[in-house]
Amino acid sequence: MSLLTRINADDVAFLLIDHQSGLFQTVKDIEVPTLRSNVSALARIAAIENIPVITTASEPKGPNGPLMPEIHEIAPHAVYVGRNGEVNAWDTPAFVDAVKATGKKKLIIAGVLTSVCVAFPSISAIAAGYEVFAVIDASGDMSPLSTQVTIARLQLAGVIPITTTAVISEILKTWKHKDAYTYAQALSAVMPNYQALIESYSKAQEVALETKK
Amino acid sequence: MSLLTRINADDVAFLLIDHQSGLFQTVKDIEVPTLRSNVSALARIAAIENIPVITTASEPKGPNGPLMPEIHEIAPHAVYVGRNGEVNAWDTPAFVDAVKATGKKKLIIAGVLTSVCVAFPSISAIAAGYEVFAVIDASGDMSPLSTQVTIARLQLAGVIPITTTAVISEILKTWKHKDAYTYAQALSAVMPNYQALIESYSKAQEVALETKK
Amino acid sequence: MSLLTRINADDVAFLLIDHQSGLFQTVKDIEVPTLRSNVSALARIAAIENIPVITTASEPKGPNGPLMPEIHEIAPHAVYVGRNGEVNAWDTPAFVDAVKATGKKKLIIAGVLTSVCVAFPSISAIAAGYEVFAVIDASGDMSPLSTQVTIARLQLAGVIPITTTAVISEILKTWKHKDAYTYAQALSAVMPNYQALIESYSKAQEVALETKK
Amino acid sequence: MSLLTRINADDVAFLLIDHQSGLFQTVKDIEVPTLRSNVSALARIAAIENIPVITTASEPKGPNGPLMPEIHEIAPHAVYVGRNGEVNAWDTPAFVDAVKATGKKKLIIAGVLTSVCVAFPSISAIAAGYEVFAVIDASGDMSPLSTQVTIARLQLAGVIPITTTAVISEILKTWKHKDAYTYAQALSAVMPNYQALIESYSKAQEVALETKK
Amino acid sequence: MSLLTRINADDVAFLLIDHQSGLFQTVKDIEVPTLRSNVSALARIAAIENIPVITTASEPKGPNGPLMPEIHEIAPHAVYVGRNGEVNAWDTPAFVDAVKATGKKKLIIAGVLTSVCVAFPSISAIAAGYEVFAVIDASGDMSPLSTQVTIARLQLAGVIPITTTAVISEILKTWKHKDAYTYAQALSAVMPNYQALIESYSKAQEVALETKK
Amino acid sequence: MSLLTRINADDVAFLLIDHQSGLFQTVKDIEVPTLRSNVSALARIAAIENIPVITTASEPKGPNGPLMPEIHEIAPHAVYVGRNGEVNAWDTPAFVDAVKATGKKKLIIAGVLTSVCVAFPSISAIAAGYEVFAVIDASGDMSPLSTQVTIARLQLAGVIPITTTAVISEILKTWKHKDAYTYAQALSAVMPNYQALIESYSKAQEVALETKK
Amino acid sequence: MSLLTRINADDVAFLLIDHQSGLFQTVKDIEVPTLRSNVSALARIAAIENIPVITTASEPKGPNGPLMPEIHEIAPHAVYVGRNGEVNAWDTPAFVDAVKATGKKKLIIAGVLTSVCVAFPSISAIAAGYEVFAVIDASGDMSPLSTQVTIARLQLAGVIPITTTAVISEILKTWKHKDAYTYAQALSAVMPNYQALIESYSKAQEVALETKK
Amino acid sequence: MSLLTRINADDVAFLLIDHQSGLFQTVKDIEVPTLRSNVSALARIAAIENIPVITTASEPKGPNGPLMPEIHEIAPHAVYVGRNGEVNAWDTPAFVDAVKATGKKKLIIAGVLTSVCVAFPSISAIAAGYEVFAVIDASGDMSPLSTQVTIARLQLAGVIPITTTAVISEILKTWKHKDAYTYAQALSAVMPNYQALIESYSKAQEVALETKK
Repeated sequence: MSLLTRINADDVAFLLIDHQSGLFQTVKDIEVPTLRSNVSALARIAAIENIPVITTASEPKGPNGPLMPEIHEIAPHAVYVGRNGEVNAWDTPAFVDAVKATGKKKLIIAGVLTSVCVAFPSISAIAAGYEVFAVIDASGDMSPLSTQVTIARLQLAGVIPITTTAVISEILKTWKHKDAYTYAQALSAVMPNYQALIESYSKAQEVALETKK
Repeated sequence: MSLLTRINADDVAFLLIDHQSGLFQTVKDIEVPTLRSNVSALARIAAIENIPVITTASEPKGPNGPLMPEIHEIAPHAVYVGRNGEVNAWDTPAFVDAVKATGKKKLIIAGVLTSVCVAFPSISAIAAGYEVFAVIDASGDMSPLSTQVTIARLQLAGVIPITTTAVISEILKTWKHKDAYTYAQALSAVMPNYQALIESYSKAQEVALETKK
Repeated sequence: MSLLTRINADDVAFLLIDHQSGLFQTVKDIEVPTLRSNVSALARIAAIENIPVITTASEPKGPNGPLMPEIHEIAPHAVYVGRNGEVNAWDTPAFVDAVKATGKKKLIIAGVLTSVCVAFPSISAIAAGYEVFAVIDASGDMSPLSTQVTIARLQLAGVIPITTTAVISEILKTWKHKDAYTYAQALSAVMPNYQALIESYSKAQEVALETKK
Repeated sequence: MSLLTRINADDVAFLLIDHQSGLFQTVKDIEVPTLRSNVSALARIAAIENIPVITTASEPKGPNGPLMPEIHEIAPHAVYVGRNGEVNAWDTPAFVDAVKATGKKKLIIAGVLTSVCVAFPSISAIAAGYEVFAVIDASGDMSPLSTQVTIARLQLAGVIPITTTAVISEILKTWKHKDAYTYAQALSAVMPNYQALIESYSKAQEVALETKK
Repeated sequence: MSLLTRINADDVAFLLIDHQSGLFQTVKDIEVPTLRSNVSALARIAAIENIPVITTASEPKGPNGPLMPEIHEIAPHAVYVGRNGEVNAWDTPAFVDAVKATGKKKLIIAGVLTSVCVAFPSISAIAAGYEVFAVIDASGDMSPLSTQVTIARLQLAGVIPITTTAVISEILKTWKHKDAYTYAQALSAVMPNYQALIESYSKAQEVALETKK
Repeated sequence: MSLLTRINADDVAFLLIDHQSGLFQTVKDIEVPTLRSNVSALARIAAIENIPVITTASEPKGPNGPLMPEIHEIAPHAVYVGRNGEVNAWDTPAFVDAVKATGKKKLIIAGVLTSVCVAFPSISAIAAGYEVFAVIDASGDMSPLSTQVTIARLQLAGVIPITTTAVISEILKTWKHKDAYTYAQALSAVMPNYQALIESYSKAQEVALETKK
Repeated sequence: MSLLTRINADDVAFLLIDHQSGLFQTVKDIEVPTLRSNVSALARIAAIENIPVITTASEPKGPNGPLMPEIHEIAPHAVYVGRNGEVNAWDTPAFVDAVKATGKKKLIIAGVLTSVCVAFPSISAIAAGYEVFAVIDASGDMSPLSTQVTIARLQLAGVIPITTTAVISEILKTWKHKDAYTYAQALSAVMPNYQALIESYSKAQEVALETKK
Repeated sequence: MSLLTRINADDVAFLLIDHQSGLFQTVKDIEVPTLRSNVSALARIAAIENIPVITTASEPKGPNGPLMPEIHEIAPHAVYVGRNGEVNAWDTPAFVDAVKATGKKKLIIAGVLTSVCVAFPSISAIAAGYEVFAVIDASGDMSPLSTQVTIARLQLAGVIPITTTAVISEILKTWKHKDAYTYAQALSAVMPNYQALIESYSKAQEVALETKK
């Protein structure tokens, strides 16, 4: 049953929609630096696993502002698809074509605003037969109330709400992974207390060994 | 499947129920000016798209106070249906008749209180075979807990919770829309930071051009 | 479909479980006076509509404390069923018998703690073929997180979460009701701002008439 | 003693500093529309009482964005003083000269950010012998913690923290004021629930009179 | 030193300013029923101790609504002083005369809004040589930010912020007081959990004695 | 129907996953001492009921830190299963074997982080035909938003969210239980106000009896 | 200047007032287990440093409940002084005598409620010439608003607000202290994340050394 | 008067105390990444202005963890002073000597925990005749209540609470500064929305110029 489906590095594509500096100013359900860090962490994992990434922006030259540059810097293989004014990215044929071209049937979608730029294409993709995960904390909306409403709507449509940490961890699968260190860095960026944890741990070991000598 | 249905300008009607100044005093899950702005934004879109709007008030001459005047000012084509004491607007035959007269099968419902004036007719309309969207942030309730409970109840009944931003954006469909400017204004009213954004953007362009000269 | 069912004065029974002064000290998701007022408002409506009310307490002589006295004062027809140590009231045969004796198939359940004293018998009653509404704000739990978890559990079981205001309003049906004034008083107790509203309204009319003279 | 000083229409000047659309994006301790409404209400009172208003912007052509236009629209007598890069407006001689030119010794200061654009000139003005009121809710800062810290700093410096409502009410002095209606409108803008109150009151009186007939 | 002064039943007067049903709708820093309960508790203590109470309302026939009736019901000796439009009650000569007539030099002031109706006369009274306590939780204001600002302003002016519980407890002085039971009831109204505590305690003792038999 | 299933002492197993001191530093949706107390309370009940407990840690020697020692101290029969780097404990064959060895078909799962260490094996267990309860407040996640998202995801998968109090109470079934006292202690640890309640109750009885003498 | 005074083990006394299980039920500004832990931590330090501790309870046999037993268990040298009904402990001659008998001029005061049981004797002690520190998080009050008001009142009276951590750390002075380990334990109880920190640290060192072998 | 003192690049020293990765885990009044960014921004300004920076750590080899490395990386001229167990850095003679060696009389102090590592040396420095600013948002404490208490204590001692933004802006003085760009970067790090603002602004200008062509 698809609601129990798992995410694997080789069967998903990432759709990152309207992560634009102007729209970030309207985000009130999550801190903007946290949001940006989470999107970057997804990009980092996509880069090392060669997961297809499609970005799009509604009007990068208008007041919504430019796409956050980190995505394409971190994941140079990401494909940008312009839109011709469509609000729902799934209404842009070139965007749907790009998704089809990936050959993947599981989509990980994040964007700003969650209630619009994530919800609309997520529901459309479900209608088109895809399995869809909406990454709520790599997305942003205008109020916590709006996020609460949107999660309820997504549940009704069969879209699976998920967090950045869960996406990365599901793809990682095992710490025996050859790129475990990169994964640890990505998770540290998502969970800032984890970074301090690792610093303390290393120091404690260093001290123990020094003392031993 | 109806839970994936989309909203289009030509297949929906707006039902705005008991947005009265007295009842506004009992609203605690959203700021009242935000609530009024959101309702006005819906009215504005209804006006330019000629979407049927039906308003009703439980007792406009009693302590619940008069209907907020903005709706009929902004959308003069809106139809007001009085009730004869019924709490659930769907129990008023004239109200159901007015809905039928629109010929639409998708209903966008907002009102105060969410748990009563929105929930009851929404569930009745589902039972009568309609597809129903409840606009939570164009509605108001007496506590966040009450809103949380009501969203859960609506989900169980198959009513789709939605935000004002999502309703307007779903109807807009594309920024190539001939009334894009009006939509941008409506969205600015819903997302106040968006207004400041547009002001900054316009100024930035003006400066760039001046400097160029 | 039962998830769309409506509440009527003549087809429901109220089950008020473990509203005890000791347990009230553990409630953290709602203010205790609000909780008590909401329970009393339910009792008041039950009294005028002759809706069956069954109360029960887990250990009224132990540290959980005595049942709040308002219920039986306001609704003298309420029936108290003692338990013999059972946590889930539905495990007490006398309690189930009392429910059966009412002849009603729709149950309105409230109690303290929501996650235990409401959730357990609600789910049991669903399993026994009843339609069940859980009145979240006439119940109390030890944290907002606990309430959030419990609402999710109830949704999965098909129990309908509802608020006190919605229960009273669904039973009222119309303000042409012969006891409309009592209903208005009950709703004022649930929504304190409504009380001030009515005071202001009466004064405004009095002033207008005086001035007219 | 100056800490007990009162505000009068004829002995104060309003200094409105850096209320720019770009800086509004960094405000997190108050909703931006509320902030803008409060500033506009101050301008409205200044206009009818002919209270001197001095505005200034750090860099109106840079990313901080243009000054919010409402101030000069509502209070056309307001004087704009440009700065030459100075962060603390009191470091701009033309600004201090403009203040001196008003001949007033009590200053009402608001701006964005509170911790910088309000705090610095407030403290400088105290040092220069003025009595200073800082209007915290006609100002904005980057976090509630920042506002808390800034209020503590202002207290230490002898700057009196105040709200927009208090400023307007202190100037009004009596509802027998010839412009009482304008004051009521200004206060309604600051306290949105007050607007609904007045609507309900008027309706109640109208109904009472109609019924009387 | 006056900032260390204590409150005694025979040397204080209570000034309750603008506790009107309309203004209650604008209160956002405290629940309205809590506010009303706290004011009533002060009235109750004033009644048994014969502490002078002066009430006043800005415009009891206008949209601010009538004075809450509980005060004069509970404390029939309270004196009502009308105002002629003055915002600051201390600007009404009849009000100041009424205060003088009490012969007390310590004033306990509460009202709605805290930032206006409490702050202005409190500061004026300090200037006139009185010792002043402002009862913050028997008062109400339009936002927590507004309350925070007002407390800071009052501190600067030498007004002592206090709570209802502290006022009642300071006057009580000892539980050997002949009216200790009335005080316990008043405190229970202010601290609702205390009511449940007493109910449980009584029950526990009753059970212990029954069991003993 | 499994969503109505009940928990019994003899048909469940407890899976406690990655409750490690390092990971606790990343928990932000619940206080860490509360989380630890809740986990310990589960262990206590498991010990007296002989419910199988399986613990596991992702990397007890790495920065995630050692397993909290209380579990194995309180429930010495608990079985620890090491993992070989797998994130999802269900991907570790030895873990699944340990679960199978218990012979139970209902699993009570808690862990840190909820969105990863609880969600992944919960969903896998559902897929493998188990009935699964996720104990949200004996688990921890990096933000309330993350918890909200995870509860929604679990609902979609048919995992039943539950609280520690509800788990213990469902297993207790009746206060006639031979270990009722231990249950009361466990519940006191989960609900700290309950502890004070019992202390007060005992004292009240003692006083009553003394007085009687 | 006394506002800069420091706390030393040999010049202070601890006054712990009305930490009773019944009163704990009314505490809403801090979690009760946190409050109890903080009080216990103070008792622990008093025990090892032989700092005088005076406890008192308003009515330990009444509904306020018994004194929390931990204090006298941890600090057996603590002296209990009964009161004869006085609300302000400083009004009980035996209490003041006990304070004088300690010979200390710096008092560390904590209690429940902060606004009454801490504020009153603190202000009285200042008037009597003592230097007073009020430990806000080893005390409890009925709402955050109440705490905010009380801190403001204490500041005006010259009472120094302080935290449990600060008290313990000021007395510790240096980690070269012979009882540093006990201090570390006390601080771990006050800061639960610190406990996990130490567990992780020890494990990290153990692992490093094992690996080294 | 010193409470009106201003901060200048050439008359202050920065004291950064106990910013250690272990202690960061106990911080609950501010997000840890925000705290780290704020400290780094201070370091950046110190580096370009050659402001003396003194760092210290209580036990960098113990569980408190290593000093955050960013400080010395960004400000290589910073001086590290070890302590010999002293909690209050001012009790370490080498630390006081280092402060004296800077020749500055105004100290900007930040650290973790605010209530201990900032408050103690701040008060000691005031006693030693320095002017002291405590940077609350470049410091961290274990709860918002703790921060509130500490700010009140600092106010009583004459320590000026301040924010990172205010410190940087006071030193900047004018945007005509030769290093204005570095300051803008530092402020962007402190106010993340400012970063998005600048990105949008630059894009808007670029678009305007392109379009012009």
